Amino acid sequence: MHRELAPNLLDARTLGRLTSLADLDPALVVDDFTTPEARAALAEAEIIVSSWGCPPIDETVLAAAPRLRAVLHAAGSVKHHVTDAVWARGIQVTSAAWANALPVAEYTVAAVLFANKQALRISHEYRQNRARRDWQHAHPGMGNYRKTVGIVGASQIGRRVLELLRPYDLELLLHDPYVTPDEASALGARAVQLPELCTLSDVVSVHAPELPDTHHLISRRMLALMPDGATLVNTSRGSLIDQGALVEELVAGRLSAVLDVTTPEVLPADSPLYELPNVLLTPHIAGSLGNELHRMAAAAADELACYTAGLPFAHPVLPEAIHRTA
Amino acid sequence: MHRELAPNLLDARTLGRLTSLADLDPALVVDDFTTPEARAALAEAEIIVSSWGCPPIDETVLAAAPRLRAVLHAAGSVKHHVTDAVWARGIQVTSAAWANALPVAEYTVAAVLFANKQALRISHEYRQNRARRDWQHAHPGMGNYRKTVGIVGASQIGRRVLELLRPYDLELLLHDPYVTPDEASALGARAVQLPELCTLSDVVSVHAPELPDTHHLISRRMLALMPDGATLVNTSRGSLIDQGALVEELVAGRLSAVLDVTTPEVLPADSPLYELPNVLLTPHIAGSLGNELHRMAAAAADELACYTAGLPFAHPVLPEAIHRTA
Repeated sequence: MHRELAPNLLDARTLGRLTSLADLDPALVVDDFTTPEARAALAEAEIIVSSWGCPPIDETVLAAAPRLRAVLHAAGSVKHHVTDAVWARGIQVTSAAWANALPVAEYTVAAVLFANKQALRISHEYRQNRARRDWQHAHPGMGNYRKTVGIVGASQIGRRVLELLRPYDLELLLHDPYVTPDEASALGARAVQLPELCTLSDVVSVHAPELPDTHHLISRRMLALMPDGATLVNTSRGSLIDQGALVEELVAGRLSAVLDVTTPEVLPADSPLYELPNVLLTPHIAGSLGNELHRMAAAAADELACYTAGLPFAHPVLPEAIHRTA
Repeated sequence: MHRELAPNLLDARTLGRLTSLADLDPALVVDDFTTPEARAALAEAEIIVSSWGCPPIDETVLAAAPRLRAVLHAAGSVKHHVTDAVWARGIQVTSAAWANALPVAEYTVAAVLFANKQALRISHEYRQNRARRDWQHAHPGMGNYRKTVGIVGASQIGRRVLELLRPYDLELLLHDPYVTPDEASALGARAVQLPELCTLSDVVSVHAPELPDTHHLISRRMLALMPDGATLVNTSRGSLIDQGALVEELVAGRLSAVLDVTTPEVLPADSPLYELPNVLLTPHIAGSLGNELHRMAAAAADELACYTAGLPFAHPVLPEAIHRTA
């Protein structure tokens, strides 16, 4: 992992658990498998605890790691570093994607509730006007009662968003090509195709992986289907949205947006997304940051405890599922 | 109720239910009991459906309403219009305070999740800087994992906030002089005194009623006890906070705040609360507005259905509880 990530990720409690469960050197954090220090460690290693910044574990790395049996990833996607060679060797892989899903889902819940309430828009207007006003007259349809929220993608994040939104008086829609109507129903949502989801939703929230198939999934046409005053929430990747078309809708004031991800990141300084009163723009912070890193580290320690006890992993990554996840 | 409120409150569905359950004239909306129209209606009325803007139902009104047996309040507090004379006559009173609690609790959940994540503060800084930055280095402790949230007041709103916050990895504290440790525990929280709550909480959210005893409940001393970087959320009434002391803390940048209520409302145009980057200021919108009014109207129709079926009210207001609620 990135060397500067380690002290933020591994709090004292998790480090204590890791060192009590395994022969682990807390000082041995590498972001390059070719250094002498890394090569020496690989020669002995049965387990790699990885996180953001782990270089690809390719055939060369594997050749240097004859005893390697498991990769415990204290972060979400393993696509960058778990190569086909890892799967071919039968090395077990586990990921804290479930743990990384939680903060993204939490950010989304806050975004949905404030979007339906028009809270941030009204805050902006109140700061501008500083006067009494009939806010519900200015924002007809404001409020969270019986609004429709469309979730695009039954990823771990999308599923958690559905779970967290269930206590509210919201109608929940779900679009995911791999989910049946019965499965959607069990998640508390109604399965719909994407055009219907965009047409019916007061808030559309995108939780699909970045894949060739999902490039500009929320196209100009899908954006045009969204009702006047609706909000698009994106915490996935900028590439899933036709951002040019979205900016046009936002500048026109027809839609609102909560964007934690954009194309590119960071946006150019002259992007209208910085200034629009109908946009909440954050710099890719919805995922695990700050104390939320400790949850991912704890997840890796939990998996190490399973491994040392001879139990199966709680959250294994399976090679056959990897092509349709982030 | 306010005459202009009626068309926003009573959607077609609820009006249909009300008129099917009772002999009700949808055009008869009064905000003054002394008009000939109102006097004529009072002479016959068995039930008053009230909401915001209902004048006090005092002895004069009651004398004109010999058949009155129930007041169904399609809003929260009944203190303004339900006088001692109503209780003395044994008139039944019901309120939609539970329904009005929901949007306030929802606003609070969004405020808590974004506060711990520092999302609005970071959004502001990103708009200013428009550059890559190490956000968690700039905001140490950001994130919702294992943060502590202190709820002041086990009101209907406070209880709903606790319920909605339970699925998150948060430690929940509760201060309420009428709640025992066991009751707090059943609500998913730990009962503490107010100084301890302020000392330990990353977010303090106020859900106590406006009473002489609660004036400046969150005093200068309590604010000083809050840890650096903590957030105060107020959706109750401005008078519960020593606002002068709070503004000092906010201007100094030591605390953050989400304020839906202030003293006075509207704030003077030169109030620093409008401009501070660590303050989300909204103009008393957390309660029912827009489509959320329909939920309160539906609640009154539900109570009317109980009444006509000879069943007890689902949400009766009891005179003995009224001195300690909003």
